[in-house]
Amino acid sequence: MKIGIVGLGLIGGSLGFDLRQRQHTVVGISRRAETGDLALRQGAVDIAATSLEAIAAAQLVFVCTPIAAVAPAVKQLASFLPASTVITDVGSVKTHIVKAASLHWPNFVGGHPMAGKAEAGLAAAEAGLFDQRPYVITPTVATPPNAISLVEEVARSLGCHLYRCPPETHDRAVAWISHLPVMISAALIQACLSESELDVMQLAQQLASSGFRDTSRVGGGNPELGTMMAQFNQAALLQALQGYRQQLDQIIDQVASQDWPTLQQTLQQSHQTRPQFVDRPPAH
Amino acid sequence: MKIGIVGLGLIGGSLGFDLRQRQHTVVGISRRAETGDLALRQGAVDIAATSLEAIAAAQLVFVCTPIAAVAPAVKQLASFLPASTVITDVGSVKTHIVKAASLHWPNFVGGHPMAGKAEAGLAAAEAGLFDQRPYVITPTVATPPNAISLVEEVARSLGCHLYRCPPETHDRAVAWISHLPVMISAALIQACLSESELDVMQLAQQLASSGFRDTSRVGGGNPELGTMMAQFNQAALLQALQGYRQQLDQIIDQVASQDWPTLQQTLQQSHQTRPQFVDRPPAH
Repeated sequence: MKIGIVGLGLIGGSLGFDLRQRQHTVVGISRRAETGDLALRQGAVDIAATSLEAIAAAQLVFVCTPIAAVAPAVKQLASFLPASTVITDVGSVKTHIVKAASLHWPNFVGGHPMAGKAEAGLAAAEAGLFDQRPYVITPTVATPPNAISLVEEVARSLGCHLYRCPPETHDRAVAWISHLPVMISAALIQACLSESELDVMQLAQQLASSGFRDTSRVGGGNPELGTMMAQFNQAALLQALQGYRQQLDQIIDQVASQDWPTLQQTLQQSHQTRPQFVDRPPAH
Repeated sequence: MKIGIVGLGLIGGSLGFDLRQRQHTVVGISRRAETGDLALRQGAVDIAATSLEAIAAAQLVFVCTPIAAVAPAVKQLASFLPASTVITDVGSVKTHIVKAASLHWPNFVGGHPMAGKAEAGLAAAEAGLFDQRPYVITPTVATPPNAISLVEEVARSLGCHLYRCPPETHDRAVAWISHLPVMISAALIQACLSESELDVMQLAQQLASSGFRDTSRVGGGNPELGTMMAQFNQAALLQALQGYRQQLDQIIDQVASQDWPTLQQTLQQSHQTRPQFVDRPPAH
């Protein structure tokens, strides 16, 4: 199959490696010609170009740009692609993207392969990045079934665990387990910085160990990415933040009123239920 | 030197290994005789006993019991130890312990060697546990200088990085970097459990990955330990929780009002300042 990839970063480049290994012909589009050259040299694409028109003959197009650029790219592609081409994306929020992209292209299927690494960009791309990782497909009632099947078939061929749900369900789920953690973790760093006594602050910095390291990790991550997540998943994130604040207030009340039996129950429940999130086997 | 260790768990046992290696004679006290037998077989103590009186001749005594048992143990020891014996402890909160223990024993020096591992108990004890780890000594204005020197000398011989501060400074610092993270991390687990739509909850559980894993780790830890920390460091923890809530509310406001430039500034500051806590070299 001829497959187009728009945006040759970590995800686009890694997809290119995997799809070429599976005998597809990959046409990669990047804004800068040097990126395309690198992708050719690395073997991530068969053909590199800086103009979208180069993928006119593709049966499937992965749009792997930053979130804000997905719908504009789909709009441009719509001006020349044959109506049978399926377009999908890899963005980490779905409601906003699916709504905007579907207006330009009925054969659009939202998708989110949940793989990543600390490094970004094409240089960090690698084959097998998606193997055994979740891949969420977010069709709407209007999405053509054969378009869904095509994207799912390719995703499955990458070794992914497939999930299918409405865009809104995806966005609420990732708000809880991905976007909310960034915000509460950033608030921890901010709170420690608010300590007014210098000797306490300095000692805290000296003594911070694995507990602080882990709890603060995602809050100390890429600020642009965190802001973009919040911006494009605002409603679900806000709901998660408000739910979180209620739980936090209960714990504050328990500590303030020295209600140790109830606090211990809370911590006991957290201890017992965490494995439902972190030790759960994939569905399929 | 003859050194007593009261309580042969992870910390007491590990201290025993290190102190024996440094040619001290270690007398270990445990409530259960089997624990003492195991400590003898492992080589963590020279002499094991179930009665405190067995350490009557020790020049230095480490009380390594749970926090609530430290002051009672010191009170018992006070009835027969010579006034020259220095007693110290290893509890993770200090103000409460130092106040209570000093009443029973003027030659008491609060201490907190900040080493640990996931497993608890004597079976997990090991030599070298304290090497290159922080060891906080928390004397008061009334603590005899030679008692401080003795504890610091032994702590330094274990390879620890020494810090000295008032008990209150220690407790405020660990509230920020150790006790607060437990509470905000537990609140994250609680918040995710509060999701009312089953399909969202199930998808969240399926998709939870390294970000959720790290941010929720300490909140899913030992509930008894978390409660005890809160109980014995209530004032400092409450202050930290209230400071945290202010920072969280600012982030919620930024998301609610869609003030993305300010949110990005917040995340940028978190990104830039986290290394002050996690990449800081030890003082000495």
